[in-house]
Amino acid sequence: MGTGVCFPKGFVAAAVAAGLKASGSKDLALVVNQGALPGAAAVFTSNRVVAEPVKFSQAQMQNGVVTHVLLNSGNANACTGEQGRKDVQACVSALSRSADVSQAKIAVCSTGVIGEYLDTEAVTRAIPTLVSDLSASGAANAASAIMTTDTIPKQVELEVDGWRIGGMAKGAGMLAPALATMLCVITTDAVIDSDTLDSALGRAVQMSFNRLDTDGCMSTNDTVIVLASGESGITPDETAFGAALEQACTKLAKMLRDDAEGAEHFVNITVSGASSETAAVEVARAVSRSNLVKTAIFGNDPNWGRILSQIGTVPSWVAPFDVGKVNVSINGVMICKNGGIGKPKEALDLAASKEVAIEIDLGAGSSGATVYTTDLTHAYVHENSAYTS
Amino acid sequence: MGTGVCFPKGFVAAAVAAGLKASGSKDLALVVNQGALPGAAAVFTSNRVVAEPVKFSQAQMQNGVVTHVLLNSGNANACTGEQGRKDVQACVSALSRSADVSQAKIAVCSTGVIGEYLDTEAVTRAIPTLVSDLSASGAANAASAIMTTDTIPKQVELEVDGWRIGGMAKGAGMLAPALATMLCVITTDAVIDSDTLDSALGRAVQMSFNRLDTDGCMSTNDTVIVLASGESGITPDETAFGAALEQACTKLAKMLRDDAEGAEHFVNITVSGASSETAAVEVARAVSRSNLVKTAIFGNDPNWGRILSQIGTVPSWVAPFDVGKVNVSINGVMICKNGGIGKPKEALDLAASKEVAIEIDLGAGSSGATVYTTDLTHAYVHENSAYTS
Repeated sequence: MGTGVCFPKGFVAAAVAAGLKASGSKDLALVVNQGALPGAAAVFTSNRVVAEPVKFSQAQMQNGVVTHVLLNSGNANACTGEQGRKDVQACVSALSRSADVSQAKIAVCSTGVIGEYLDTEAVTRAIPTLVSDLSASGAANAASAIMTTDTIPKQVELEVDGWRIGGMAKGAGMLAPALATMLCVITTDAVIDSDTLDSALGRAVQMSFNRLDTDGCMSTNDTVIVLASGESGITPDETAFGAALEQACTKLAKMLRDDAEGAEHFVNITVSGASSETAAVEVARAVSRSNLVKTAIFGNDPNWGRILSQIGTVPSWVAPFDVGKVNVSINGVMICKNGGIGKPKEALDLAASKEVAIEIDLGAGSSGATVYTTDLTHAYVHENSAYTS
Repeated sequence: MGTGVCFPKGFVAAAVAAGLKASGSKDLALVVNQGALPGAAAVFTSNRVVAEPVKFSQAQMQNGVVTHVLLNSGNANACTGEQGRKDVQACVSALSRSADVSQAKIAVCSTGVIGEYLDTEAVTRAIPTLVSDLSASGAANAASAIMTTDTIPKQVELEVDGWRIGGMAKGAGMLAPALATMLCVITTDAVIDSDTLDSALGRAVQMSFNRLDTDGCMSTNDTVIVLASGESGITPDETAFGAALEQACTKLAKMLRDDAEGAEHFVNITVSGASSETAAVEVARAVSRSNLVKTAIFGNDPNWGRILSQIGTVPSWVAPFDVGKVNVSINGVMICKNGGIGKPKEALDLAASKEVAIEIDLGAGSSGATVYTTDLTHAYVHENSAYTS
């Protein structure tokens, strides 16, 4: 039985070191859907600056059912123009020949530095070995090969009523997916067509990756692809499938957050009592975006004034609420009550809590949402100033 | 001849150590307009969480011409509810008695920690000395007394055709005025009524303090007050006055930026070729908000991919442009041309440049704007994690 993307039946994977990473580590991965009833769907970055592999894969998803996903780390192939487009095409041609698969069935994902040309020759030279190494036990290698500043590979496995979901993801930017490149491949052996897969994926991504600390804008290369093989022979209930897919995506999203660059606290910001889900998300995001809130948490200081000040930046047409009714609890202690001074913050020991739960009750409705973030640390500044990525 | 707020004729100022700052430094200041033709205008935070002194002063500006501005550091009197309101009133009553001035002529500004009650007794006890110390040479002391994490007092003086503008400001949050408390008092001896003052101030603040690195949202206490004494006897041309006021505000805004917590580079982000001023401001702000851009600059890495990725997060309905026409220059070197690879970044030596000019040409129109920001450093994280503020 395989792990990650090879946990469901019908999938094989492999990875090699093509030479794109200076370290000599594995940097090229391939996931192949061998199922008899293939389905595929994908969500791409909403950034207006879109990497060449994203442009290519977006078109592929429109034109047919993708079964082969080629992923590289070490270079994003973004802002590379016509040369970048040709480089994608060269990789796709090489894979098509080696794997004897129609080009129409291939999607490509890249992650790494923006604004440098891809070493296409290194990729095409490595593809034959990559194809011959494909196996049901190749998932862990594939998950490692897509890592950039990630410290651990991220895989997920879920079993539901005879069908399975598996997956892998990479991304370790603190603000993933806002400012980091996030790649994710999800697989399932459920019998499910591309349209159903597409709508389930849209909601799952909204509730998971898009709820990571973010201004709602993805980076140049972010891609989430889901492939269905149909090999379990079971057609799941749509709601059950959607729930399982959301669970798999949320697990991977939390793994990304927990591996965030230099993080010392993992912060869940939950807004309740909002007039709408959008209002709740926007308030939670405003708090998650504040460097002053993030540095305070790094310093183990439950500085609720900085939280309230961030809540107050959300326009009233986005989130109607009365500041005098807002309560804020940190790890269960209501340190701000009715917009003013609550329990003494000495009751809190953030130094002892790796997990920090910030709960904000707006007192203005019954909707809610959670956004996942981290603190802002010296290690974050170091990692993002000392290395080009 | 006085400095700062006492540079124009008709103004006196003073400062004392009331005991609000643990350090024992001066923490209470008073600026008084003694002019025969007084005018006043103010701009306050747009945050929905508004400190008690801001609520009070907003009402005062509606009701008459303010001549006395009482400012304290060490406590923001924000999120303090009914008790906070009473504390403002107690300070105002004490000043009214000591200075023999109608309460209607008093405005109050506070800066410091949010969510703690003001030591009103300390303030009222210090007010008689504050009033008796008022003099035309008290401006420098007043500018020092309003400092929090500022390392230097900020004063400005401008002389134009027989009339003058002076001012002082405090604020050292990296994201001022977005997330720090900014206070500013501007004075002039021009003959100018409150309405004219009001419209000139609105534009001047928009072009200066609101162009500091920011998401456009001010903190709980931000206040800019301008007082006119009329003592020069000269009524300036409105355009000339507006230009001088904008110049004074921009000088103070740059002083705030240049004293930003832990900054090692001062970054001017200028967007040109935009379809509108709003589009230019939004693109510049998107870049100025990016922790990945800020840490790269700290690391002396002209990482234009991170800049382009941020530009791409601005929705097309806010800033229409074609990514393939975007040029980015850093300190005069066009490292990104037509959305792709430009001159080699090795041509740039950011380690040698304290000032970093990022110029973004969107190629989509003739409007432009500049936003002022800094890099993101270890010192910033230290200062904002180690101290409650």
